[in-house]
Amino acid sequence: MDREKLKEMLEAVAAGTMTADAAIDRLRALPFEDIGFAKVDHHRELRQGHPEAIFGAGKTPEQVVQIMARMREKGSNILVTRCPAETVTAVVGAYPNAEHHKAANAITLLATPPQPRPGYIAVVCAGTSDLYVAEEAAVTCEFNGNTVKRVYDVGVAGLHRLLGQHETLTKANAIVVCAGMEGALPSVVGGLVDVPVIAVPTSVGYGANFGGLSALLTMLNSCATGIAVVNIDNGFGAGMLASMINRIAGPH
Amino acid sequence: MDREKLKEMLEAVAAGTMTADAAIDRLRALPFEDIGFAKVDHHRELRQGHPEAIFGAGKTPEQVVQIMARMREKGSNILVTRCPAETVTAVVGAYPNAEHHKAANAITLLATPPQPRPGYIAVVCAGTSDLYVAEEAAVTCEFNGNTVKRVYDVGVAGLHRLLGQHETLTKANAIVVCAGMEGALPSVVGGLVDVPVIAVPTSVGYGANFGGLSALLTMLNSCATGIAVVNIDNGFGAGMLASMINRIAGPH
Amino acid sequence: MDREKLKEMLEAVAAGTMTADAAIDRLRALPFEDIGFAKVDHHRELRQGHPEAIFGAGKTPEQVVQIMARMREKGSNILVTRCPAETVTAVVGAYPNAEHHKAANAITLLATPPQPRPGYIAVVCAGTSDLYVAEEAAVTCEFNGNTVKRVYDVGVAGLHRLLGQHETLTKANAIVVCAGMEGALPSVVGGLVDVPVIAVPTSVGYGANFGGLSALLTMLNSCATGIAVVNIDNGFGAGMLASMINRIAGPH
Amino acid sequence: MDREKLKEMLEAVAAGTMTADAAIDRLRALPFEDIGFAKVDHHRELRQGHPEAIFGAGKTPEQVVQIMARMREKGSNILVTRCPAETVTAVVGAYPNAEHHKAANAITLLATPPQPRPGYIAVVCAGTSDLYVAEEAAVTCEFNGNTVKRVYDVGVAGLHRLLGQHETLTKANAIVVCAGMEGALPSVVGGLVDVPVIAVPTSVGYGANFGGLSALLTMLNSCATGIAVVNIDNGFGAGMLASMINRIAGPH
Amino acid sequence: MDREKLKEMLEAVAAGTMTADAAIDRLRALPFEDIGFAKVDHHRELRQGHPEAIFGAGKTPEQVVQIMARMREKGSNILVTRCPAETVTAVVGAYPNAEHHKAANAITLLATPPQPRPGYIAVVCAGTSDLYVAEEAAVTCEFNGNTVKRVYDVGVAGLHRLLGQHETLTKANAIVVCAGMEGALPSVVGGLVDVPVIAVPTSVGYGANFGGLSALLTMLNSCATGIAVVNIDNGFGAGMLASMINRIAGPH
Amino acid sequence: MDREKLKEMLEAVAAGTMTADAAIDRLRALPFEDIGFAKVDHHRELRQGHPEAIFGAGKTPEQVVQIMARMREKGSNILVTRCPAETVTAVVGAYPNAEHHKAANAITLLATPPQPRPGYIAVVCAGTSDLYVAEEAAVTCEFNGNTVKRVYDVGVAGLHRLLGQHETLTKANAIVVCAGMEGALPSVVGGLVDVPVIAVPTSVGYGANFGGLSALLTMLNSCATGIAVVNIDNGFGAGMLASMINRIAGPH
Amino acid sequence: MDREKLKEMLEAVAAGTMTADAAIDRLRALPFEDIGFAKVDHHRELRQGHPEAIFGAGKTPEQVVQIMARMREKGSNILVTRCPAETVTAVVGAYPNAEHHKAANAITLLATPPQPRPGYIAVVCAGTSDLYVAEEAAVTCEFNGNTVKRVYDVGVAGLHRLLGQHETLTKANAIVVCAGMEGALPSVVGGLVDVPVIAVPTSVGYGANFGGLSALLTMLNSCATGIAVVNIDNGFGAGMLASMINRIAGPH
Amino acid sequence: MDREKLKEMLEAVAAGTMTADAAIDRLRALPFEDIGFAKVDHHRELRQGHPEAIFGAGKTPEQVVQIMARMREKGSNILVTRCPAETVTAVVGAYPNAEHHKAANAITLLATPPQPRPGYIAVVCAGTSDLYVAEEAAVTCEFNGNTVKRVYDVGVAGLHRLLGQHETLTKANAIVVCAGMEGALPSVVGGLVDVPVIAVPTSVGYGANFGGLSALLTMLNSCATGIAVVNIDNGFGAGMLASMINRIAGPH
Repeated sequence: MDREKLKEMLEAVAAGTMTADAAIDRLRALPFEDIGFAKVDHHRELRQGHPEAIFGAGKTPEQVVQIMARMREKGSNILVTRCPAETVTAVVGAYPNAEHHKAANAITLLATPPQPRPGYIAVVCAGTSDLYVAEEAAVTCEFNGNTVKRVYDVGVAGLHRLLGQHETLTKANAIVVCAGMEGALPSVVGGLVDVPVIAVPTSVGYGANFGGLSALLTMLNSCATGIAVVNIDNGFGAGMLASMINRIAGPH
Repeated sequence: MDREKLKEMLEAVAAGTMTADAAIDRLRALPFEDIGFAKVDHHRELRQGHPEAIFGAGKTPEQVVQIMARMREKGSNILVTRCPAETVTAVVGAYPNAEHHKAANAITLLATPPQPRPGYIAVVCAGTSDLYVAEEAAVTCEFNGNTVKRVYDVGVAGLHRLLGQHETLTKANAIVVCAGMEGALPSVVGGLVDVPVIAVPTSVGYGANFGGLSALLTMLNSCATGIAVVNIDNGFGAGMLASMINRIAGPH
Repeated sequence: MDREKLKEMLEAVAAGTMTADAAIDRLRALPFEDIGFAKVDHHRELRQGHPEAIFGAGKTPEQVVQIMARMREKGSNILVTRCPAETVTAVVGAYPNAEHHKAANAITLLATPPQPRPGYIAVVCAGTSDLYVAEEAAVTCEFNGNTVKRVYDVGVAGLHRLLGQHETLTKANAIVVCAGMEGALPSVVGGLVDVPVIAVPTSVGYGANFGGLSALLTMLNSCATGIAVVNIDNGFGAGMLASMINRIAGPH
Repeated sequence: MDREKLKEMLEAVAAGTMTADAAIDRLRALPFEDIGFAKVDHHRELRQGHPEAIFGAGKTPEQVVQIMARMREKGSNILVTRCPAETVTAVVGAYPNAEHHKAANAITLLATPPQPRPGYIAVVCAGTSDLYVAEEAAVTCEFNGNTVKRVYDVGVAGLHRLLGQHETLTKANAIVVCAGMEGALPSVVGGLVDVPVIAVPTSVGYGANFGGLSALLTMLNSCATGIAVVNIDNGFGAGMLASMINRIAGPH
Repeated sequence: MDREKLKEMLEAVAAGTMTADAAIDRLRALPFEDIGFAKVDHHRELRQGHPEAIFGAGKTPEQVVQIMARMREKGSNILVTRCPAETVTAVVGAYPNAEHHKAANAITLLATPPQPRPGYIAVVCAGTSDLYVAEEAAVTCEFNGNTVKRVYDVGVAGLHRLLGQHETLTKANAIVVCAGMEGALPSVVGGLVDVPVIAVPTSVGYGANFGGLSALLTMLNSCATGIAVVNIDNGFGAGMLASMINRIAGPH
Repeated sequence: MDREKLKEMLEAVAAGTMTADAAIDRLRALPFEDIGFAKVDHHRELRQGHPEAIFGAGKTPEQVVQIMARMREKGSNILVTRCPAETVTAVVGAYPNAEHHKAANAITLLATPPQPRPGYIAVVCAGTSDLYVAEEAAVTCEFNGNTVKRVYDVGVAGLHRLLGQHETLTKANAIVVCAGMEGALPSVVGGLVDVPVIAVPTSVGYGANFGGLSALLTMLNSCATGIAVVNIDNGFGAGMLASMINRIAGPH
Repeated sequence: MDREKLKEMLEAVAAGTMTADAAIDRLRALPFEDIGFAKVDHHRELRQGHPEAIFGAGKTPEQVVQIMARMREKGSNILVTRCPAETVTAVVGAYPNAEHHKAANAITLLATPPQPRPGYIAVVCAGTSDLYVAEEAAVTCEFNGNTVKRVYDVGVAGLHRLLGQHETLTKANAIVVCAGMEGALPSVVGGLVDVPVIAVPTSVGYGANFGGLSALLTMLNSCATGIAVVNIDNGFGAGMLASMINRIAGPH
Repeated sequence: MDREKLKEMLEAVAAGTMTADAAIDRLRALPFEDIGFAKVDHHRELRQGHPEAIFGAGKTPEQVVQIMARMREKGSNILVTRCPAETVTAVVGAYPNAEHHKAANAITLLATPPQPRPGYIAVVCAGTSDLYVAEEAAVTCEFNGNTVKRVYDVGVAGLHRLLGQHETLTKANAIVVCAGMEGALPSVVGGLVDVPVIAVPTSVGYGANFGGLSALLTMLNSCATGIAVVNIDNGFGAGMLASMINRIAGPH
């Protein structure tokens, strides 16, 4: 298709309906992927009504509201993560249809409901304190049209509860596992299943966990195979990666 | 099936052909997954002739040869990574059919050829020095029956070469990207495709790369979505994760 | 006993009073330890009225109150550590019998008084600023039914005061030593006694103590033998470990 | 007794058979513990024929042989850890009765067989590569007169094997658990038992394990209770701590 | 000239119009550069009406106002960076001509308009959150009399926008590139141009970016040539360096 | 003298005016240094009216006031460092004679004026922001009876000002040099003088100074000889060390 | 020109002498910079006979010789840095015209002598041990056609020697300053001149210099303005940056 | 005196026996300290036959021999530290009078015996493995003309031995204390004496001592007062600092 667009333009030049100079300018102005050398997710998504995400932290409420306005004009579904309280107020005030996912500290604003996908993603977390990261991942997955099965509060101290969810885990197309402290849960889950495990270290803990470093290193050094690590507290990134895997998976 | 096995045993107890005490002992002795609570890859693989991997570093040549002997008895395909020179000599001496993959510094010994899978995995590396990690990933993927397309020597300084391989990248089910130094290549690849990118930081570099820490942090903090990070130099882990994703992917 | 329970069930199957299918379901549902492969502290403690601990930081007051409610139903003794001020207010409001240990920043709520154990545990701290960690350890020990002897304010600069407590130290079954700054006190105590010394680095200090890292490294590298290290500021963990040692110790 | 010795001396002064000046000099010269203020393990051990340990690394073979000579004169049992090859040769040459424990890379030289103690210590390790640390711990325990039960090669990937050893673990008075890589094994063992678990991070691994830092942080941040951490690769320290706990434990 | 001043003084001594003692005292009191051994930027700038910069953070509003007063007496142009809110109020209150650059969080107070220089500096930033650092750099450049072209919001995810600014980049005499997160943008820009790229890591990000460490290491390890790195968030330093390069550049 | 006290006691035993048992008890109770084995600064200082210091941070105002009360009873001069605002209010309220040194954030309360010592200590700081650390050092020196010469605001950018103070520096018995940022000032001062330079890294800076780590490492790696490093921001420690050196120095 | 080439092609399409399909393929195949969106240094340099650099470490001698062969075919001047001894032997054996710069541990092989540039670059180093990094920078500068003035052995301890070279420093267009240990030299040089100072931390030192980290942090935190930092030991990068600055500088 | 020299020169100008131009040139050429602004140790030492030190590591034997040759011409006493084996051979071959201090791994070559100083320095080390650092300090002190009293092998485990040396410690003018592992010895010594304690962390240890970092942090965070820290393994620096303190100390 990109190729088609380019061909069209060149044929217009060939037909004399477009000058060479105009073609050069258009080439320069076109989104990069249109010339076939590269495909930029961002632009393609805009054209396709795909979801857009805004990292809320470090932006003023006004900036967030403005960025959302531009996106809405393009008909995008919008996800805002890490929302400070003022941003939530501002966004919900500006867009009454926006939904605030409190546990995930995220906001979604849908232009069109996401297209549901077959299969599902399991989102697992070790303890109550890791829940906000797990919910960020879960909301991100759902925002992308995936079914999510939540398996919460199944830390190492409650191993039997995890094992009781064995079937839920093995039938998922991807599993997001969030854990703080020593972060051993992904290793244990990875030992039980043979689907990709997306390990999310959380900053939950104190002292020698050094803001999540402990859990991060544990996950990077896991003996289990099939462990994909993302940044500390990066529930959004884990949800996006899981969505991508679930999309390429055929029905089980 | 596991359920079946357990049911059988319980019915044997019910039928009086097995005492309760004997059943307890068998339950204790059975591989864990047989009772349905958990599934341990290792054992399942043994039963199914699946591949086995040995981390060669830190083991004596004798230990490696002995572990391989036990695995061969079970009909496993065997992969040995990180082979010191003496181990290569010892293994190839003991098993003339073993193949030494020099660039990957790995040995494979096949009992049965791996079952080929549809789709393919792209393995990308930035520079000549990262090649050994990329090859470890590639050999691991092939050992698991996957087709691999190698896209080597496409660092940021040769961006056009990477873009020239755009089609190879976008049609893969998973992409392994190995990079040392500043490790920016996975971010760039991740911006061009919408399949999972498995980022492997390598220890290639000097000074403030601190043995690969620099590339590791870059990849963990990537702005691109769909980036799965593994340990520094962990080509094997990246290959296993990519194999898992390619297995769950249906044909494109 | 676990074995007994399992045997009973299997005999019920043998006797025809339980179907194989029902047995499988019960096996799956039973707490893991009941089948003899594993013993999960948490569940056993519930059955035995043993104490339960809640890490208060990072949980909302509501979450803490709810978790306590579930535990009370099972007749557990409850310890809440690291209580934010609002949590204290909420818990004490909900459970008038709850006791707030101010210096330890902990709350206890007893269903039944803990069973007293012979022997005692010494809890030592270097300075006034380390006191809150020492008290968390002491309250945890007492919560588990142990007698605690407090030896406070005996830093290296007051070595003679420590030596004046020599008898108290040598007759303990375990000694918890809390120290910040350079964290040398456990080494000194370890050189004076031959019982296990549980070293708790505290985050007390500034500059190059890097949030307790300095004291932690000191303790891990101690030349003295018999030093067990726990996480920075982890008075609770130290108290639990000391309680475990005191329980396995016979009377002196 | 110390008190007795001091009393004797003071009575000698009182009786006029010793001058005050001489008493002062003797007080100054006496081993510190004799005056009751402090007890120095080292000296007491010498008098009591207790074992002595030498850290072999960083000492020349001649230094080790000489230190051993001084200790032998006092009738001590001697343990040398971390023996470079030349030291082994030199020591075994000098003391034909010395025993070289190859897997532990340690030498023992006994004047009198250690006094056997009731109960036992379990020494657990995750993988083949961690074995040298586990053996250092085991040899240290045995050198102190303890019975050791070895539970080797029971990493997370072989969880059922660990569970198969459940009884061995729960009946021990102390468990030493050695693990490299992500170091999650002590957390898992700690969740299964209620005796002290001495966690020994090993330097086994590569990349982001940073010489054992990863396993160390995991163990320090463990959610399981009763975890005592020692320095990276410190099998000796773990063995000494376990010995101390087993000594204060009464028979089960 | 310095040489002249010194010569003059020595000739005055020779002429008897100045005593040797007075000359010594004057030598000692003179700004260091006057004797020809060294040139101290600070003093020269005072004499030449060159700009002066004050680092506002960590100073009280009173201190800043007083330092500015001394500088104004010497006719300096003044730049205050990192202004806390109270400092802004105090400074603007005291000097109504002072201009507050809100996005840069900086204040300028000009005695004489800076002398415009030929050529220009491009200031590039990856995302909205990096803007405050980029603006600090831009304001610093303008304060030094340079023309600045701003190229904002051109992160890796919007590569085509960066490429659309290609001409702006290649014609600059120096390019300041600010980026947080993984900090890969300077490498990409450095690959596109052959003018010096001044890379400013920002502290924007979370988790494993460790306050900007991730971006800093990325930039230090860049494969691209011509990358000059400054401290995290140091927009001012980048602006000064860029100004220096633009000053020594002849017109293009 | 200590020896005398001990001799007296032993002679009392010899004379029959004290029983051996009583002597033992007294020995145990006596401050450690009295028996000649050790000298504990703290106690000696109490007896000699020497100054006492309290680290104010991390103590409640009540704790500080109480500790001061005990010290006053012994006639000590008292120095409180790192005073939170509430502590200042509480202390000054309780002890109207207490002097609050605002720039040093310290309080002194003198029972007797300190005995003046010959010679002096120079206290140097690089910038305005390092002043609070320099003042903590200066006040500590003066509290110990030393004359202090302050040489402030002489950073590397104002080298000529430092050189203008050359005589003040070379005639000091010890020089305290406080510097943040890159912390190069002690190296420069150390190259100019041949008296001990006590280098105090300050936490002043941002980004890659990592809370003072940068300045600390600079000072530890100084090429200049005679550099003694103390903890980050430890003006008190530097002042105590300088006081000690000035005390052992004879008059110049 | 790029624009011209593209225009030509489009006119060929317009003229019917090239089909749209062929144009698309050519666009895809063309080096990226030809279409005007991006300019890749590497390719442009090949066309212009510009120098090429090979990082010798981590490549086999055969790889280096082969890469050089390909470059020679394109008429490039070649610089090989960080040459292991075997590589030197192999390269000099294969290319007798290659020059081995022993102190810089670098090899140059010139097809055409570099075009000399006006102005010069000063290369400064602190001590004898930093010389290899300084020489790598100097050889790189000369390889790019620049005149280099070497100012060696001018550490802080020999400040007067540095000052003696004041004129050499102030007249340079750029100054490369290499220093290990505490790395303070760039700050001092930066205080003396007003041209860009490229600071190269070296790994020279021991202990708390942590492989050059100390010098790196010092340079990043420098108070002096105009300091550009490169990676530890990166003499090559510093030389390239200095060359770039000297190229854009007009004659003084 | 410097003042005198300068005055002389100015009077010569005044008297017409020297031109102003000649005076300027001489001013520029004179060692920096002669004009009274600064005093450079190095030059003054040359004139006064003071000792010179060469850091042997990282220099070739030829470089060391040549530097020594230049120093000998000026009549300096020479100390070479950290001598690789080849350097020892080369130096002793070139200078038969050179003395190799094996335990300190240092060489001294005296032109004139150092002038003996009153008072003494105590050099203390914890264990046999720290001895090489202690000896480097001791040899450095002696090389500067100081009497040294060695107090070796007095680690925390042998506290009574340290206490037995109490008098030696308290009468010293300065104490150098070398310790690896947890590095607690300086804190203990600092608690016993009131003279400056120069703490030298050694790299002796393993695992979490991270090459001496553990001991370094311990010493920097010491609660004891009067602790001066130098770089890891920097026996030379400690010896120089101690010499400086002993020089300014009057006789006790």
